[in-house]
Amino acid sequence: MSYGLLKGKKGIIFGALDSNSIAWKVAELAHQEGAEFVLTNAPVALRMGELNGLAEKTGSDIVPADATSMEDLGKLFDHTLEKFEKIDFILHSIGMSVNVRKGKEYTDINYDWLMKGWDISAVSFHKVMKTAWDKDAMNEWGSILALTYIAAQRTFPGYNDMADNKAYLESIARSFGYEWGNKNKVRVNTISQSPTLTTAGQGIKGFNGFVDFAKEMSPLGNATADDCANYCITLFSDLTKMVTMQNLFHDGGFSNVGVSEMVMNRFEK
Amino acid sequence: MSYGLLKGKKGIIFGALDSNSIAWKVAELAHQEGAEFVLTNAPVALRMGELNGLAEKTGSDIVPADATSMEDLGKLFDHTLEKFEKIDFILHSIGMSVNVRKGKEYTDINYDWLMKGWDISAVSFHKVMKTAWDKDAMNEWGSILALTYIAAQRTFPGYNDMADNKAYLESIARSFGYEWGNKNKVRVNTISQSPTLTTAGQGIKGFNGFVDFAKEMSPLGNATADDCANYCITLFSDLTKMVTMQNLFHDGGFSNVGVSEMVMNRFEK
Amino acid sequence: MSYGLLKGKKGIIFGALDSNSIAWKVAELAHQEGAEFVLTNAPVALRMGELNGLAEKTGSDIVPADATSMEDLGKLFDHTLEKFEKIDFILHSIGMSVNVRKGKEYTDINYDWLMKGWDISAVSFHKVMKTAWDKDAMNEWGSILALTYIAAQRTFPGYNDMADNKAYLESIARSFGYEWGNKNKVRVNTISQSPTLTTAGQGIKGFNGFVDFAKEMSPLGNATADDCANYCITLFSDLTKMVTMQNLFHDGGFSNVGVSEMVMNRFEK
Amino acid sequence: MSYGLLKGKKGIIFGALDSNSIAWKVAELAHQEGAEFVLTNAPVALRMGELNGLAEKTGSDIVPADATSMEDLGKLFDHTLEKFEKIDFILHSIGMSVNVRKGKEYTDINYDWLMKGWDISAVSFHKVMKTAWDKDAMNEWGSILALTYIAAQRTFPGYNDMADNKAYLESIARSFGYEWGNKNKVRVNTISQSPTLTTAGQGIKGFNGFVDFAKEMSPLGNATADDCANYCITLFSDLTKMVTMQNLFHDGGFSNVGVSEMVMNRFEK
Repeated sequence: MSYGLLKGKKGIIFGALDSNSIAWKVAELAHQEGAEFVLTNAPVALRMGELNGLAEKTGSDIVPADATSMEDLGKLFDHTLEKFEKIDFILHSIGMSVNVRKGKEYTDINYDWLMKGWDISAVSFHKVMKTAWDKDAMNEWGSILALTYIAAQRTFPGYNDMADNKAYLESIARSFGYEWGNKNKVRVNTISQSPTLTTAGQGIKGFNGFVDFAKEMSPLGNATADDCANYCITLFSDLTKMVTMQNLFHDGGFSNVGVSEMVMNRFEK
Repeated sequence: MSYGLLKGKKGIIFGALDSNSIAWKVAELAHQEGAEFVLTNAPVALRMGELNGLAEKTGSDIVPADATSMEDLGKLFDHTLEKFEKIDFILHSIGMSVNVRKGKEYTDINYDWLMKGWDISAVSFHKVMKTAWDKDAMNEWGSILALTYIAAQRTFPGYNDMADNKAYLESIARSFGYEWGNKNKVRVNTISQSPTLTTAGQGIKGFNGFVDFAKEMSPLGNATADDCANYCITLFSDLTKMVTMQNLFHDGGFSNVGVSEMVMNRFEK
Repeated sequence: MSYGLLKGKKGIIFGALDSNSIAWKVAELAHQEGAEFVLTNAPVALRMGELNGLAEKTGSDIVPADATSMEDLGKLFDHTLEKFEKIDFILHSIGMSVNVRKGKEYTDINYDWLMKGWDISAVSFHKVMKTAWDKDAMNEWGSILALTYIAAQRTFPGYNDMADNKAYLESIARSFGYEWGNKNKVRVNTISQSPTLTTAGQGIKGFNGFVDFAKEMSPLGNATADDCANYCITLFSDLTKMVTMQNLFHDGGFSNVGVSEMVMNRFEK
Repeated sequence: MSYGLLKGKKGIIFGALDSNSIAWKVAELAHQEGAEFVLTNAPVALRMGELNGLAEKTGSDIVPADATSMEDLGKLFDHTLEKFEKIDFILHSIGMSVNVRKGKEYTDINYDWLMKGWDISAVSFHKVMKTAWDKDAMNEWGSILALTYIAAQRTFPGYNDMADNKAYLESIARSFGYEWGNKNKVRVNTISQSPTLTTAGQGIKGFNGFVDFAKEMSPLGNATADDCANYCITLFSDLTKMVTMQNLFHDGGFSNVGVSEMVMNRFEK
């Protein structure tokens, strides 16, 4: 079934890795809703990925790009704009902490890795938008989205420097969103998604415990990658034109629950 | 044009007064997107209203109801459920402060009027949901929405006790949203809308100044009643199932702008 | 030991019931820090209270007053101003929900009780400030404080309509704080305190479980009534003159913890 | 006059440059309240500074340290701990954006400068705390503070990448505050201060306009550097032991004012 919500819209989708990825689900659904887009991911991710199948299924080109490289981003946008002239939406679904991967505690962080993770997870969002800005790539009333997590507001053990990266990412959304709005009515938002069992999410220590905790806390349970794709579509559509500079919780209610009865049951025994 | 986003959905829309009302716009658009619904407003509002035209246009019944009266609400839901069996969405667009109307300052409030405004503007949302709850009126994954204003978070002179009412209203959305989610996956949210030149909005002292200030602060300008209707439709649709207990700013960016260049220009001269 | 932080300051303290009360601890400490004040509570609370001992110990008068009665409040302030001419601080530590007491669920609230609880727990704060306003009772740079709970932001099962009352109370602090600041530099804030085992707190269903959960979530544990008294003293002192219209979390970190390792341990077993 | 609030407490104060600096005012007041401390700043800042006078007046050592250098920080803490054994408080008042200094717009940022500013303004806070952590430098119930600005939450034109840096800084306070609380009851907070006419503040384009706007918006006016020093003292004292992981607005009410009457007057003419 399709509503045709994105009919005629063009975009770029960053971060589809495999069929567990939120970006993958967004690509499938955006295609179904009538959008055309370019798929991109880091060259290293592409080598191990299954992205070709998605590209075929959705009639998309794949352009490898390291999202921290202005040169790569320049080529990606050149290719895209050659094909589409201008675009209407961008999805940024990129995040990685070397400290998390290597099991470094937050109090024992390696600062080179900190910088690398910050560049990949947060600054890349600025670089993507700056490239789009310099090339005047966005149509009026376009929509730019990045995915984030509530660790930007509250501490979750093991989330480590990704918490700080997400806070920086959300700030970029506000800072650059202000500029885009003034320039040509483009909106910029972040979606703060439930913990999601993607291949990336699984890298975080104790992640399964998180997922269970979040599920028991949230009256609607955790939002899945498919749910997130649905929500992204509404934010790329023409029905949400005036929403900008926002961090939007998509989490089954988690963010506004102090404690649930289900979790309390573990305390009252 | 229609996406068919609300095809097969049934609902109740509170608060359409005239063609400037947000609720009126929501009704028009919900109809266009395939929904059926009952229109309701306070008997006193109906007497001076033009609601018949909207009812005809959208094929809706009108059931007068004072939203502070459990008896009236009971009849409204009985009529609605007889027609639709169960419903999928509710819009609460109700607000009135006697103190504002009568020009009483916040520091000189009349407490009987305070209570009346609180009952109409905030408690009515609880009463509507309690009636729906008792009659088991909501389909699974239904969506309940109320309209609010950022005065619930920050002070705006002249907004008076409506600020406190809106804070209470938003709290009801969280408190009852928790219960609904657990009960049968129904979500409850509030939309914090730009100042809107509805017939109700015009009652607030200095409101035109507000509207201009908000417009200059917001990179996308103020969201109109039509924009708000678009956003409401996405929140009634199946694409936003996991968003609950949230206050969603729909304001062209206003809420996250500290100050805009346009406003600063008035200070730097 | 005493710093003399409140030397020469005069005030009114609402809500001391017995030696478990936060207001009781504030009174003891304020006295120690050099303040003079009037103690007040509802006549019904006084009948069962031990307030005389506190009054003697601190050299204070007790003036019974129902904080929802403008008449009682008028008399209380008349007595106080006769004694002190003007005052420098007010503590509002008042809250009660009939629905909670009677075990009514949030979805089955009695609306008369709702109104009563709202009047006592929230509107009373407005009434106290309006009385002070009308009698021009506050010295410049005075400080007005009310106690609140994080249920105003996030849902806690069993906290019921007190959540909505606290949201309204915090909004009053902002709304009236704006007016007081403009009038004569008086500041108004709320302290959002850890769950505290006062006589009042014990009335809430499952409260002990709450306390344990909050303790395990908070890196510093729960703030006690004594801790809260310390914090109140800083907010009445001349060192915090520019803090106004704020809700200040005093909770050992609870509000900004997503989940703690200690709580996660209950999920990973 | 002195309350003796910091009697016996030891600390380190980062960022005193000249007598306009907030850190300078904190040092003066901390001394007056009985604290002993080491003063530190970047070697380059010291060369042009007047810090010797402050050191003499407060009986403090000056240890130059680049707060982005773990080696320098190690030496600073070694010197400090040799003198004091352990410390009770740290003030981080450090911030600098090369992009702001060089007049680069946010949409045209130089990424090397971005990284440098991030390292100085935000990561330095982590490095300071990691050094203290590794050397077990903090006494139980110690207090660590950093200064920030509301641009972390809302966009202010011209504030540029400092907005994102401050968001990252505030996130560090939460992330590391969680660890410190668990380790040995140390608290970590940020103060979000009114725009202040320090030598650093004056570097930001249109800063005077900001200051005027903030003043007109805030019912108590802007908090000065002296006011901020007062507030810092309360947060270093034993009276605020349970406040942690918080961002505390110290701004005369600015953060919770939507618009003031004074600002509206410029719109209603």
